[in-house]
Amino acid sequence: MDTLALVTAIRVEAAEPSLQDNTADLDRLKAALSQTLPASIAGRSLSIPFSCMATIAAAFRNARFKGYAVLNVLPRQVDIIDFLSQKPEILPGVALDLGTTHLEATMVDLLTGTTLAHGHAVNRQIEYGADILSRIHFAVKKKGEDQDRKGLQILQQAILTTINDLVEELTGQAETTADSVRAISISGNTTMVHLLLGLSPYHICREPYIPLFNDPDPFSSREIGLSLHPQAMVWVLPSIGSYFGGDLISGILSVGLDRAEQISMFIDVGTNAEVVLGNQEWLIACAGAAGPALEGGVARMGMRADAGAVEHVTIDRASWQLNRQTIDDVPPVGICGSGLIDLVAELYLARIVDLRGKFQAEFTGQTEEQKAFVRKRLVTRDGETVFIVAFVEESGSNEPVVLSQIDLDAMMRSKAAMYAILTTLTAQVGVEFAELERIYVAGAFGEHIDPGQAITLGMLPDLPLSTYEPVGNSSLHGAERILLDEAARQRAREIGRKITYIELNVNQEFMIRFSGSRFIPHTDPKIFPSVPVFS
Amino acid sequence: MDTLALVTAIRVEAAEPSLQDNTADLDRLKAALSQTLPASIAGRSLSIPFSCMATIAAAFRNARFKGYAVLNVLPRQVDIIDFLSQKPEILPGVALDLGTTHLEATMVDLLTGTTLAHGHAVNRQIEYGADILSRIHFAVKKKGEDQDRKGLQILQQAILTTINDLVEELTGQAETTADSVRAISISGNTTMVHLLLGLSPYHICREPYIPLFNDPDPFSSREIGLSLHPQAMVWVLPSIGSYFGGDLISGILSVGLDRAEQISMFIDVGTNAEVVLGNQEWLIACAGAAGPALEGGVARMGMRADAGAVEHVTIDRASWQLNRQTIDDVPPVGICGSGLIDLVAELYLARIVDLRGKFQAEFTGQTEEQKAFVRKRLVTRDGETVFIVAFVEESGSNEPVVLSQIDLDAMMRSKAAMYAILTTLTAQVGVEFAELERIYVAGAFGEHIDPGQAITLGMLPDLPLSTYEPVGNSSLHGAERILLDEAARQRAREIGRKITYIELNVNQEFMIRFSGSRFIPHTDPKIFPSVPVFS
Repeated sequence: MDTLALVTAIRVEAAEPSLQDNTADLDRLKAALSQTLPASIAGRSLSIPFSCMATIAAAFRNARFKGYAVLNVLPRQVDIIDFLSQKPEILPGVALDLGTTHLEATMVDLLTGTTLAHGHAVNRQIEYGADILSRIHFAVKKKGEDQDRKGLQILQQAILTTINDLVEELTGQAETTADSVRAISISGNTTMVHLLLGLSPYHICREPYIPLFNDPDPFSSREIGLSLHPQAMVWVLPSIGSYFGGDLISGILSVGLDRAEQISMFIDVGTNAEVVLGNQEWLIACAGAAGPALEGGVARMGMRADAGAVEHVTIDRASWQLNRQTIDDVPPVGICGSGLIDLVAELYLARIVDLRGKFQAEFTGQTEEQKAFVRKRLVTRDGETVFIVAFVEESGSNEPVVLSQIDLDAMMRSKAAMYAILTTLTAQVGVEFAELERIYVAGAFGEHIDPGQAITLGMLPDLPLSTYEPVGNSSLHGAERILLDEAARQRAREIGRKITYIELNVNQEFMIRFSGSRFIPHTDPKIFPSVPVFS
Repeated sequence: MDTLALVTAIRVEAAEPSLQDNTADLDRLKAALSQTLPASIAGRSLSIPFSCMATIAAAFRNARFKGYAVLNVLPRQVDIIDFLSQKPEILPGVALDLGTTHLEATMVDLLTGTTLAHGHAVNRQIEYGADILSRIHFAVKKKGEDQDRKGLQILQQAILTTINDLVEELTGQAETTADSVRAISISGNTTMVHLLLGLSPYHICREPYIPLFNDPDPFSSREIGLSLHPQAMVWVLPSIGSYFGGDLISGILSVGLDRAEQISMFIDVGTNAEVVLGNQEWLIACAGAAGPALEGGVARMGMRADAGAVEHVTIDRASWQLNRQTIDDVPPVGICGSGLIDLVAELYLARIVDLRGKFQAEFTGQTEEQKAFVRKRLVTRDGETVFIVAFVEESGSNEPVVLSQIDLDAMMRSKAAMYAILTTLTAQVGVEFAELERIYVAGAFGEHIDPGQAITLGMLPDLPLSTYEPVGNSSLHGAERILLDEAARQRAREIGRKITYIELNVNQEFMIRFSGSRFIPHTDPKIFPSVPVFS
């Protein structure tokens, strides 16, 4: 590879010392190495960290001054951190998407770029708080600057254990050992990386929302207690602000928004909806709370896109049949984000949900078949109106799968927030949706939703469906690039510097747009020409 | 100072964060600092080591984003290692001459260059071995590569304790604390710095005499267990080889041999005699065992230049009186190097020592006064001939101070080695002694010897006495420059690269010259025109 991985192994052949050539061992190594360094790093200063000196010197001698130097490639410096007598078969590195609830990781060979293993894990911090805010509160229990650090330490330990176990799983798959892992690139939201580094997130959730750091300098794994090679380099993707983390930078990097010739958009829906607009010349971003209903965090029957989640729903308006598709084709136990979007869009088209997002049992012109369908599925249960997606006998649990008015309201807020975010962002730079070449949609949300249904709801702009491109776990893909490609590392930092971040919490226009978006598809249906309007 | 100390404090004033300016704390610090960095370091990358992030962020916030950033100035990088709300009154740094037997240190203020304290200490490693070779043997008890590291650890701990105690003494003098010390520059021989860093000196004393390192990259004090500020930078002067250490580089730096327009020479006599010849264009060096007799390590009555050491001797050849000068004017207890040189030169001029370096009681043309003097002082004691320098009643101990034939033989070997070293070195580059503009003589040897007497013995070349310049503890003076001046740090590395080192152990010419020098003044007296020759 000529893309320059974070850690690399370079062949070194030094002459054996003699009375005529009595250079010290480590100086000999540096001198020989500087002859064979690839041109891309030849100008950087070569250092040997103190803690590596003894090991390297012994290995270099034992190998009779010939072998492979293992190098940590820093922006302006190259650290020699190990010496191997043989060319290593693999040089494992881990790319990690550090999510608030889930972690996903890939192990790649830094020498070839080959994927060695892949895995995921539940963030053990969940025990101490489901979402970011509750984690921050747990971390900083006392108010003020002299906060008790115990909570922070507990959360740091929890995430370290999660990562160490996940790495263990990956090394098992790849038939290698944790201490053979030479680098880890970490892409996570700002709070998660603060907690991982054991640094206080106190100010992240307090106006004016200032992180302690955005762009940490690389450090070694032993400094925070990751069970990798002690000198494994930890490269944390830079954040932009408290609510715009390295996971987003990683996503932008992964889809190449920062290199796009035409204006494109990148949408990542997690707990927040995070949106970036731009091209190779400029990038503008904002984030807002559009996600909970979509991520399964709010609706009572809501769940992540796991086995048993209803991910697609259609209502056949000729035969009045409800068709469900469940992840892994098992009996349904809940509804994930894409299922919710489908369901509400179908209910709107079936006129069981009105333009205000309220259940309606009756409307003018309703047929008998429609009435029968509504009677069967729109019922009162424990004193509230619910729509039955799966009857108890169809369900994978001992309860029916239902959508309540409360869930529906949450969904309406989420979809309104999403559209308001998108319009606020485009308005900020005077760009029309029609000018967008592409809209990249990240994550499970991007993978599962039907953009047509999201358009019906007025959640996403009414554009040709081919504009929308699901991109999977772009945060993880970006982290993989970071491991393998120095240009990607430079771009990540440039993206951080280049992005203009719009703070929605203080944006009046956003609130006006949010109100206008709380109808299906919108208070101004003309901007959704493809969506039928019932009055 | 515009010389750029190893550690410096720079005023920073950052705007307070706001919703409009929500840069993270540490990025804010870096950005503000990059505005005020002196031009000399403005181009270097600014880093914050992981272990400093939390402390710096808290201090920066507590100081309301205004104060002083403490910076470790590395060759291509600047590490921010602390943040202070007020300008520090002093920023203490320690320059250390790390000797095999003695340590000497100066504490200087890195902000102003002012000397704050000065002290010295006995190297506690002495308990485990008097000289370098016995220390190496103690450090590496088992043979081969899988040596027991225990001896090495013991010696490292002994020297760390010595240094920590010495620093404690300095901080006491300066009324500050050890953890306020921000940097230490260390100049010592190659073995001493290996032992300090806990790195094996195994190969130093085995052909082809290869050190593990010559030029270590700077590291922080906490990494080896020095009780300074944990991030205090440790800057070890580079060595050139096993027998040519950083103490010599420091000396060259101190006297400016590497910048001299005319050819000059630098002589440092410790356990070895180490000699450098050159100017701003080239430097050539060698070292040899000329020292023991001169440093008090061989002669039974020999001692370091401490209180009670006879440092000067004259024999009045008119009145046949022996005059002694003792350090601190107390009754004599031994003879230091300069005293030995004086004594043997005077004994030669008095014809009590012949040109072969042997005592002679009688010679043709001896006067009665001479005979009486010899009878009184040249006596047989415990079966060997000794010359009495101080009778028991004049002595500070309960023994007379004497010079034996064995001491004399050792002295002759030392003086022969010294002159052979000097001639080998000059011959190597075809330079005549007469071409030397100056001969710098370092250490106690330089301070105390009378160059005229050394010339009489044939130890130093027969040049005008004004050629010789004592320069004191040049190793320490160089280390002080290293603390305060980046140009000195660059020069130290350049000197290391520039010097050609001649290995005398394999030099046949040296052995021939050594034999020729074992006469007073020389087998070829014509090269010592100022010295009388008796036949």
